[in-house]
Amino acid sequence: MTQRVQTVAEYIADFVYQEGVRNIFMLSGTGSVFLDDALAKKKGLTYICARHECSAIIMAEAVAKLKNNIGVAVVTTGPGGTNAMPGVIESWVDSTPILVISGQVNTKEIIDDRTFGLQGFNIVDNIKKITKYATTINDKNKIKYHLKRAIYEAKAGRPGPSWLDIPMDIQSQTINPNDLEDFHPPEIKNHIDSASLNNLLSLIEKAKKPIIVFGRGIKISNTKSKLLKLLADTSIPGISARMANDLISFESPFYFGMGGIRGNRISAKIISESDLIIALGTSLGFSFMGDLIKSKINLIVVNIDQKIFERSDLNITCGLKTELNLFFDSINKIENKPQFKNWHEYCLRIKSNNPMVTELEKKDPINSYYFIERIAALTNSRNIITNDAGSSNYICSQAMRLMNGQRELTSGSFYTMGLTLPLAIGASALEPDSQVIAITGDGSIELNIQELQTISIHNLNIKIFVINNGGYASIRDSQDAMCGSRYTDDSQVLDFSKVADAFDIEYEIIKSVTNIDDGIKKVLSNDKPTLIEILCDSNQHMIQPFQEI
Amino acid sequence: MTQRVQTVAEYIADFVYQEGVRNIFMLSGTGSVFLDDALAKKKGLTYICARHECSAIIMAEAVAKLKNNIGVAVVTTGPGGTNAMPGVIESWVDSTPILVISGQVNTKEIIDDRTFGLQGFNIVDNIKKITKYATTINDKNKIKYHLKRAIYEAKAGRPGPSWLDIPMDIQSQTINPNDLEDFHPPEIKNHIDSASLNNLLSLIEKAKKPIIVFGRGIKISNTKSKLLKLLADTSIPGISARMANDLISFESPFYFGMGGIRGNRISAKIISESDLIIALGTSLGFSFMGDLIKSKINLIVVNIDQKIFERSDLNITCGLKTELNLFFDSINKIENKPQFKNWHEYCLRIKSNNPMVTELEKKDPINSYYFIERIAALTNSRNIITNDAGSSNYICSQAMRLMNGQRELTSGSFYTMGLTLPLAIGASALEPDSQVIAITGDGSIELNIQELQTISIHNLNIKIFVINNGGYASIRDSQDAMCGSRYTDDSQVLDFSKVADAFDIEYEIIKSVTNIDDGIKKVLSNDKPTLIEILCDSNQHMIQPFQEI
Repeated sequence: MTQRVQTVAEYIADFVYQEGVRNIFMLSGTGSVFLDDALAKKKGLTYICARHECSAIIMAEAVAKLKNNIGVAVVTTGPGGTNAMPGVIESWVDSTPILVISGQVNTKEIIDDRTFGLQGFNIVDNIKKITKYATTINDKNKIKYHLKRAIYEAKAGRPGPSWLDIPMDIQSQTINPNDLEDFHPPEIKNHIDSASLNNLLSLIEKAKKPIIVFGRGIKISNTKSKLLKLLADTSIPGISARMANDLISFESPFYFGMGGIRGNRISAKIISESDLIIALGTSLGFSFMGDLIKSKINLIVVNIDQKIFERSDLNITCGLKTELNLFFDSINKIENKPQFKNWHEYCLRIKSNNPMVTELEKKDPINSYYFIERIAALTNSRNIITNDAGSSNYICSQAMRLMNGQRELTSGSFYTMGLTLPLAIGASALEPDSQVIAITGDGSIELNIQELQTISIHNLNIKIFVINNGGYASIRDSQDAMCGSRYTDDSQVLDFSKVADAFDIEYEIIKSVTNIDDGIKKVLSNDKPTLIEILCDSNQHMIQPFQEI
Repeated sequence: MTQRVQTVAEYIADFVYQEGVRNIFMLSGTGSVFLDDALAKKKGLTYICARHECSAIIMAEAVAKLKNNIGVAVVTTGPGGTNAMPGVIESWVDSTPILVISGQVNTKEIIDDRTFGLQGFNIVDNIKKITKYATTINDKNKIKYHLKRAIYEAKAGRPGPSWLDIPMDIQSQTINPNDLEDFHPPEIKNHIDSASLNNLLSLIEKAKKPIIVFGRGIKISNTKSKLLKLLADTSIPGISARMANDLISFESPFYFGMGGIRGNRISAKIISESDLIIALGTSLGFSFMGDLIKSKINLIVVNIDQKIFERSDLNITCGLKTELNLFFDSINKIENKPQFKNWHEYCLRIKSNNPMVTELEKKDPINSYYFIERIAALTNSRNIITNDAGSSNYICSQAMRLMNGQRELTSGSFYTMGLTLPLAIGASALEPDSQVIAITGDGSIELNIQELQTISIHNLNIKIFVINNGGYASIRDSQDAMCGSRYTDDSQVLDFSKVADAFDIEYEIIKSVTNIDDGIKKVLSNDKPTLIEILCDSNQHMIQPFQEI
């Protein structure tokens, strides 16, 4: 840290840079004017102005997920902060460490009322429950303490967002770095309870058909190779939770795709036969557990977050609260671990016999599952795939067999509509040399369509594939099942060729299965932002894997 | 209320209809599927599907403000609810009674965690501080109680949003209306403290240059004629707060335009000379008070909300907590009230000598103040004017002299970017025969640009005037003042002709002052949705009326 006298805003810019941050996302405002200025002019930081504060947060979230480090967004006071809230909740439910820095009115204008100062709002008290740490800074000499603590808390344990709210008068005050109060993170001694570990091992020994379910905790703890060793040593089939679908190549004999009620047919069959779930670094939400919540299956949970062990909806047979490195190091050094070769071979047969897409689907009108299978086949480690809610999330969960080192960003807990564009922008800002494949639907794209302008202005290498199936296909599925097929939504979709033109983005259309491969290859061969409309079957239903069993 | 057995969702549809609701705004979702269905099929209700949940809330807010009744929006679980939050906060700070009904996961899937069930989120605990009433309904027989109470609380005292969160299993349960628990609103005995009223009168008697500042409370209490009588009886000059600029014709000798730091030159001069402010039904926020907060001016506050009397930033000389009808009835019946004819005549001279737009501004490039003056001149009581943040709000506050019965909808407390389109849609849905004039800027329109599709699909009679001044003009003003004119935003603006085409909306452009009148008249002469780009001076600064004094 430089020792010269500087403003609080400049100190923040230096601090986040030192923390490894290189990308800032913001929407400028008068209430954050000193913050915007300091971050924009800081050498080594690049910034992107989003067209909605919520998008700025999602862009920061994309960076945080890809880089496994804090993501940073800046918003202004009042509606700047309130617009950001849905994005912050997205980071909260998806356990992503981000730091939101908001402008606030002058300290003396903060009063106890619905609004205050010029467009002021008590943001901090309204986001306490959805952040790991949130405070208004009213002492310039505490800026180091709060920054260090906010970032520490965002990453500690189960990660999540932190928020620092900085009044105008504080933003522009000068500080002497020597006068600043420091924050010292608590020392955490991770340990493994050996009785629990033995209990866990004996449960595995007794099992006949165990599975390992792994989540984004593996990425956060950087333990992929240790997980792979455990899978290889024991031949226990591995199944991913939503945010770890890109962790292990689908070609690996130890990986059987994503599980859960929106998972694939393979994992559904395996889960329905298994007698022990070993959940590593995943939150076992309803979308994974589904009817398993009611079943008596043995459940081992290894997680850093105490809260999962207190959940009323899970019947945990054996719980280990620990950091994953420590868990893997402890279990991997045990010799003669139980092995499940027969079960594993049985699962491999399930894997080869249960494609999500068969020859039957390779016909017009385009089946979106087939389309996404081709996206997976024709992309590689240069590609980051982002996706959206509804059917575009289903198809990626179920049929996108990643085997070439692609990475995926998604709304893992909420399947929130409209996230594909800001996720793609965040990814592209972080890795300008990568090519981003943004999968979305004709319904979902509308929610953040303004960000096409951000993509256009920065000429980002983003390929936006729009599954046009005539509206909200997955909601129609629900209405078919529950409301006598009375649909409430508008059936008219956008004219995407004109939309692309309006935002000065290239446009392509794929109308037939016979053009899919050539169409995808053509688009991927250049680096220009492009919107590609995929005319799909509007009567296609989403696959419910457990209902087929 | 019909007595037949019906579902909870159907009961809700009947109930809000009985409360006078005719417009529902929503974004369909699986988690609200029974609610969406029941409200969509209810005879007498019309619904509009927004393209973002926050927009749906703002549409409901527009209806609530125009109709002075509860506005209703429906959203789904998880991100449906969280996306709605910024809109709910908008209703909170603008004191608007709306009812948000959200879908929730099945009751048994609600657990204590960051997320639960399929895309579930604990919305209620996170909106407690920004709502008048919020609860999750877990007993079908309490639906009447909660509906009645939510609507009562939303309208009671200082209005605001209420929120009912309804699990999937409750939505579809059948009820017998005879079994339902009822809610009985508390009896409120309004009275006027006669000592305070006498104190108030003696303060007025002692004053030499009093002014009456009136806010939206006059609309809410429906006391416009009583206010006019008081103004006429006393010759006290009337000045509006932001949400009451359309209450009294600018032609009235008793009205002197909007006050505050974004007010006009007339009111600024009058306020700076006055010795007593009588504030009726207005919250006296910083944007009105500005430096007056520090002054020793006598301040009378008449308000229904106790909280204003406890504010640390106001030096209230005399406070009357009362309903406005009672106040006006009490004061208007007093004979021989003090009169201020000389002061009033002096103010009338200020009014005629301080135009916001002079002949000097009637030249190219177009001055947006001049443009808005022409909008005011060329519209009438058929027109509802909505506006947006930044410069489009400034110009409407300062130079839009409404004299033909036009009504205006705005973001009164926050000046939130992007609200003009959803406000316009709400207004047009409520009054299909009115013509809506939506004023926005090239920056602000981006935030809810997706709603152009809603306007297009419903072929709404909305004229969207886009002030193109090359980006965020009012933020550049701040950066000129505070950051050495370093601008952080993208300077590239949308191609609005292509944007209009993409959403299948008519397009016009006005490039010169000589075309303003003809251009406006042409556009207003038909009922088609139209986007009109006004090429304005990108170097124009906003007027700071108090800095000129």
